[in-house]
Amino acid sequence: MTDTRFGLNRQARLTGSLMLDGGASLPEVEIAYETYGVLDADASNAILICHALTGDQHVASPHPRTGKPGWWQRVVGPGKPIDTDTHLVICANVLGSCMGSSGPASLDPATGRPFAMRFPVITIRDMVRAQAALLDHLGIQRLKAVVGGSMGGMQALQWAATYPDRVAAALVIASSARHSAQNIAFHEVGRQAIMADPNWRGGEYYDAAPPAAGLAVARMAAHITYLSEAGLTEKFGRRLQARDAKSFGFDADFQVESYLRHQGISFTDRFDANSYLYITRAMDYLDIAEEHGGSLAAAFRGTSTRFCLISFDSDWLYPTAESRAIVHALNAAGAPVSFVELSSPFGHDAFLLEQPEMDRVIAGFLGVGA
Amino acid sequence: MTDTRFGLNRQARLTGSLMLDGGASLPEVEIAYETYGVLDADASNAILICHALTGDQHVASPHPRTGKPGWWQRVVGPGKPIDTDTHLVICANVLGSCMGSSGPASLDPATGRPFAMRFPVITIRDMVRAQAALLDHLGIQRLKAVVGGSMGGMQALQWAATYPDRVAAALVIASSARHSAQNIAFHEVGRQAIMADPNWRGGEYYDAAPPAAGLAVARMAAHITYLSEAGLTEKFGRRLQARDAKSFGFDADFQVESYLRHQGISFTDRFDANSYLYITRAMDYLDIAEEHGGSLAAAFRGTSTRFCLISFDSDWLYPTAESRAIVHALNAAGAPVSFVELSSPFGHDAFLLEQPEMDRVIAGFLGVGA
Repeated sequence: MTDTRFGLNRQARLTGSLMLDGGASLPEVEIAYETYGVLDADASNAILICHALTGDQHVASPHPRTGKPGWWQRVVGPGKPIDTDTHLVICANVLGSCMGSSGPASLDPATGRPFAMRFPVITIRDMVRAQAALLDHLGIQRLKAVVGGSMGGMQALQWAATYPDRVAAALVIASSARHSAQNIAFHEVGRQAIMADPNWRGGEYYDAAPPAAGLAVARMAAHITYLSEAGLTEKFGRRLQARDAKSFGFDADFQVESYLRHQGISFTDRFDANSYLYITRAMDYLDIAEEHGGSLAAAFRGTSTRFCLISFDSDWLYPTAESRAIVHALNAAGAPVSFVELSSPFGHDAFLLEQPEMDRVIAGFLGVGA
Repeated sequence: MTDTRFGLNRQARLTGSLMLDGGASLPEVEIAYETYGVLDADASNAILICHALTGDQHVASPHPRTGKPGWWQRVVGPGKPIDTDTHLVICANVLGSCMGSSGPASLDPATGRPFAMRFPVITIRDMVRAQAALLDHLGIQRLKAVVGGSMGGMQALQWAATYPDRVAAALVIASSARHSAQNIAFHEVGRQAIMADPNWRGGEYYDAAPPAAGLAVARMAAHITYLSEAGLTEKFGRRLQARDAKSFGFDADFQVESYLRHQGISFTDRFDANSYLYITRAMDYLDIAEEHGGSLAAAFRGTSTRFCLISFDSDWLYPTAESRAIVHALNAAGAPVSFVELSSPFGHDAFLLEQPEMDRVIAGFLGVGA
């Protein structure tokens, strides 16, 4: 008989009350997720993949709205670096998002209407708590590994800090243990762009036109931070849309303008503006050291989790220095850790792109003790 | 008898038709400007200072709207690095701006209504042409120096390329000879933020509420690029507004958020949104090499202008590599050029701040041949 908890397009209703860092609690939480592969008899082969800010649970299967391949299909699958022939891979939509997990667009059971801005403000640790509840639901006590890039890496670190006994290994890619002033500043621009859109209406737009223009601007600003100056120059330079000459107008004259506009507009088809507010807030609040008296090492002292960190030399959103600070803290905590800075012209987004070296590091790290 | 062409709060009506790079022409142009010091008998001691994107002509005298000191009062004045005891210093509001020079907010003589988006798209070279017409009006054939930071540096370079016989020396600070894909991308975010504001109304807002919310978002995004990651960390880090704890809400929790919001909102009191569109467009169009068959050296071949370039090591908007590329081209053109990269934690905005080393370089460069 098939266990309906496993497979594609799953949704779990977790009814144990979820206590949140902000002091509120959610009496029940829905978490949408996908699993790939088969859980072994002693439930020891599970790998949790955590997605980034605007990512989703469709890591290795097509996105139901866009029809596009899974966002890490290159890395996750049979015989791939994260091998679903030998592992059960789980990827869950984070708490606060809009792809089937509880978030501001969800109906508040108390009123039958969308939470909107009445949804409680959450943290990365709250996202991780919801994932832990999902693992309980799936009968998985301990993860062979937790893996993530960008905000996914923040969750992986937070998993190791919060549930050290449940994580054998944590793989943290292009990420950080805290949001810098510049990180917060870029997110604040995005939030202000959304809130400046009259269609936002204090978040109460679910029965009307959404604040698509504001959300598109937010996405455009963020998107620049995902790329590198060199990568943008290589991809677009100053090339014009029209082959011949400048228009001396305000249409998208340069290819990079047209590209950015497309990134902004297409994003609004698949993402909820309020979720963008909540998830960026969660990222801004992240400071794992702060939760441990200001010492990042203290967050990991005595851990038996193995760590691997990967950074990219052209990533200026979460630059190598952020990964190095984590490595130093893990060293001080006596945790086993390996670290590699990879070379790529593609900036922060490199972890989502063809990166054979990254694939080898991932496969090697997950293969230890297999 | 006083020559009313010189002094503070001057405005010149230049009635010779101004031909523009885009093919249009303006039958007459108003240019608001200030002068400091006295022009000598042979009109040989004039220094033109060019301002940045959102700057103005009030370089060394209080801003009439905000009451704040001139934006480079530290550098320009009696006995200062740009010495008004011995020089006539001129600073003119650029064409397209909104502090008294012709721009989209100006009345179109043909209709009696504001130009709005019927104002022709302009270039940095058009700004320089208008300044040259102003110098004609002032009876100044040749500048002892043209000086500018950021977009002001672009004008200084463009002056030397367009009117080599009229510029004895050009001082280019924290600038570039062309806008990169990343530069264009950030400007495009700002333009889209303005145009997404329903109050923008295709630019026809002069008898109604202006698109202040969109302009504030544009300013916030741009402002981040004027600072460095290290500077933001030093100034704000993750410090909270309230002393005690996070609010778990969407008010400005972090000091950097509150600071950015203030930067955005206060900007809208002093700047016209359409001018922001036009001036960012002019900057994006800048590519001095392109105007000379793709060779930056060709733009300066045979020049007798002396050059000095200054960059700041933490400036990621116009990084040192951009200045270095200009220096290489000037070397190839056989032009006399000096170059210094200064160390500062303050990013692009360093040129506006206390920089004793920059002051010494400026004074030294302007003092040669004095």
